[in-house]
Amino acid sequence: MPTIRDIANKLGVAVSTVSKGLNGASDISEDMRQLVLDTAVEMGYAAKRIQKLGKRKVCILIENMEYESIDQFGYEIIVGFKLSAARRHCEVKVIPCNLNLQSQERFDSFMLKHGYSGAFLLGFTLHDDYISQLSKTTVPTVLLDNYIPNRRVGYVGTDGFTGIDLAVRHLADLSHHKIALLNGSKNSLVTEERQLAFTQSMGKYSLEINPGLMANGYYVPECAKDHVSVFLQNGATAIVCASDLIASGVIAELRRLGKRVPEDVSVVGFDDLPVAQHLIPTLTTIRQDRVAIGKSAFAMLEELIGGVNISKLLLMPELVVRDSTGPCPPEKQPLANLERS
Amino acid sequence: MPTIRDIANKLGVAVSTVSKGLNGASDISEDMRQLVLDTAVEMGYAAKRIQKLGKRKVCILIENMEYESIDQFGYEIIVGFKLSAARRHCEVKVIPCNLNLQSQERFDSFMLKHGYSGAFLLGFTLHDDYISQLSKTTVPTVLLDNYIPNRRVGYVGTDGFTGIDLAVRHLADLSHHKIALLNGSKNSLVTEERQLAFTQSMGKYSLEINPGLMANGYYVPECAKDHVSVFLQNGATAIVCASDLIASGVIAELRRLGKRVPEDVSVVGFDDLPVAQHLIPTLTTIRQDRVAIGKSAFAMLEELIGGVNISKLLLMPELVVRDSTGPCPPEKQPLANLERS
Repeated sequence: MPTIRDIANKLGVAVSTVSKGLNGASDISEDMRQLVLDTAVEMGYAAKRIQKLGKRKVCILIENMEYESIDQFGYEIIVGFKLSAARRHCEVKVIPCNLNLQSQERFDSFMLKHGYSGAFLLGFTLHDDYISQLSKTTVPTVLLDNYIPNRRVGYVGTDGFTGIDLAVRHLADLSHHKIALLNGSKNSLVTEERQLAFTQSMGKYSLEINPGLMANGYYVPECAKDHVSVFLQNGATAIVCASDLIASGVIAELRRLGKRVPEDVSVVGFDDLPVAQHLIPTLTTIRQDRVAIGKSAFAMLEELIGGVNISKLLLMPELVVRDSTGPCPPEKQPLANLERS
Repeated sequence: MPTIRDIANKLGVAVSTVSKGLNGASDISEDMRQLVLDTAVEMGYAAKRIQKLGKRKVCILIENMEYESIDQFGYEIIVGFKLSAARRHCEVKVIPCNLNLQSQERFDSFMLKHGYSGAFLLGFTLHDDYISQLSKTTVPTVLLDNYIPNRRVGYVGTDGFTGIDLAVRHLADLSHHKIALLNGSKNSLVTEERQLAFTQSMGKYSLEINPGLMANGYYVPECAKDHVSVFLQNGATAIVCASDLIASGVIAELRRLGKRVPEDVSVVGFDDLPVAQHLIPTLTTIRQDRVAIGKSAFAMLEELIGGVNISKLLLMPELVVRDSTGPCPPEKQPLANLERS
């Protein structure tokens, strides 16, 4: 581990300058401060300084996810995280992040500068600049729904295999056999996992896997328009959606096409956001316990800070049955189909 | 949630008898006590009583795993668990378990009778009687290396995908291309995961997947005898083993067959038990951080007791390179093979 003197020697500046840079003194230039921080991080200084801090302080960096009101996905996650942090007298700072902040400063330097012992990153995608830095970070970091192979970085999320399986089993129990999946955006760990889970579950219940009944949307209601009519043409009597917002779009589109939910087509959401209870009909969905995700993320971050390298922590989802799912229409059931053909 | 009166009514006995049964009083018969406990559990009384307990007490039930000295797999897991429990002022009782104890009493009744808030189960297999009861338990329970679909039951272990990938990548970097896997016993989650991880990794590094280079053993050195000569006949220049004990058997068997480690054949273990450093040559292995497993198991149990339903928690393994792996012998490398043929 380098000393302050090592950093000073490398930069060819005085020890006092390095010390000022690391401690946020105001009488050196911002450029010099940044240079000191970046060099300290490069030389592996970060972890040492953070360990020395007395009272702990961690941050939640959030991008591309709404969290300001209770009906938004990030809200309860942050509540859960803060609840657990408060019990351990750990200060939490929530920092909205954007590409600008990310490109201004390296992740490790940012953490060192502000004295954060660890970070919880919400809403980032694998293309983000910060994420690409995480494979080398020494800062304990927890990622929601993303995996980076680094001992200091953990992945927290909901067990998608069990979630999708609960949805498919529920629909299979209602005699549906042409079940569609309107998944989230491509190139995401969660999307890939749910895709795999869906084909596995369909196989498990001896249901036909039809590529015409699987599509990738994105996490807004509008994406339903592109896919619902195709699903109907391919015989779908049930649609599993990757989020409640997508499901709300699917229900609206089905209504526009003159289909009743659940009499003609059953719809299942994912997340159990407050909107699920307010849709007409109310939405059957796979609940992600977001307060529990937040609490677990803090527990995981605490372990990572303590040197216990948790790689992955998954929460158990729950099927919440409401009014948007019902029995497969009799004329669409396999036996009826056979008789007609 | 039933009251003591409900239980008394169901059994047709006095409320005082139920109370005595639940509180371990000595002036009722053991049979009556057991009946009261079983009925209470059946009626869903367990969770309530456990929540009411002041000072918490949890147990580690251990079967079919050695843990009494530091060179055994279970030892450090229990140390880690106890360390974290002590920090939270939680009492831990370690209970060696066997089929006899399991068949004497239902798991939930056992937990209720002794006032345990939760349990950590080590070494059990899916065939064990207790495990079959766990799909319905209301007692927060953590299982090592086993998954049961119940919201109150969590799975803790090491990320086998990353572990096997670290081993295969290390061997691929050393130009090995005929790599064998001597896996653990069949019908185990961990064995299946490692098998899948192995074929995925071999594919990832464009190495040939040969069924003649994969076998299931069991977790003792002796199992090597049945498989090493077959691997050699099929051209193996490296063998990945599911445990350090299996690896020690593989090294002994290679020596018996006149092969040098690592000059002729490289060997990789799994676990990093103390024996790995004492073998000749010292063993390259995939380290499972057992203290961290124990600490994480306690953290998970604490969350489960608090109502946060963690389904799965995986720790990051680490490749520890020692002397049992080396470059693939030049005459066995693909180019040389091509020239000879």
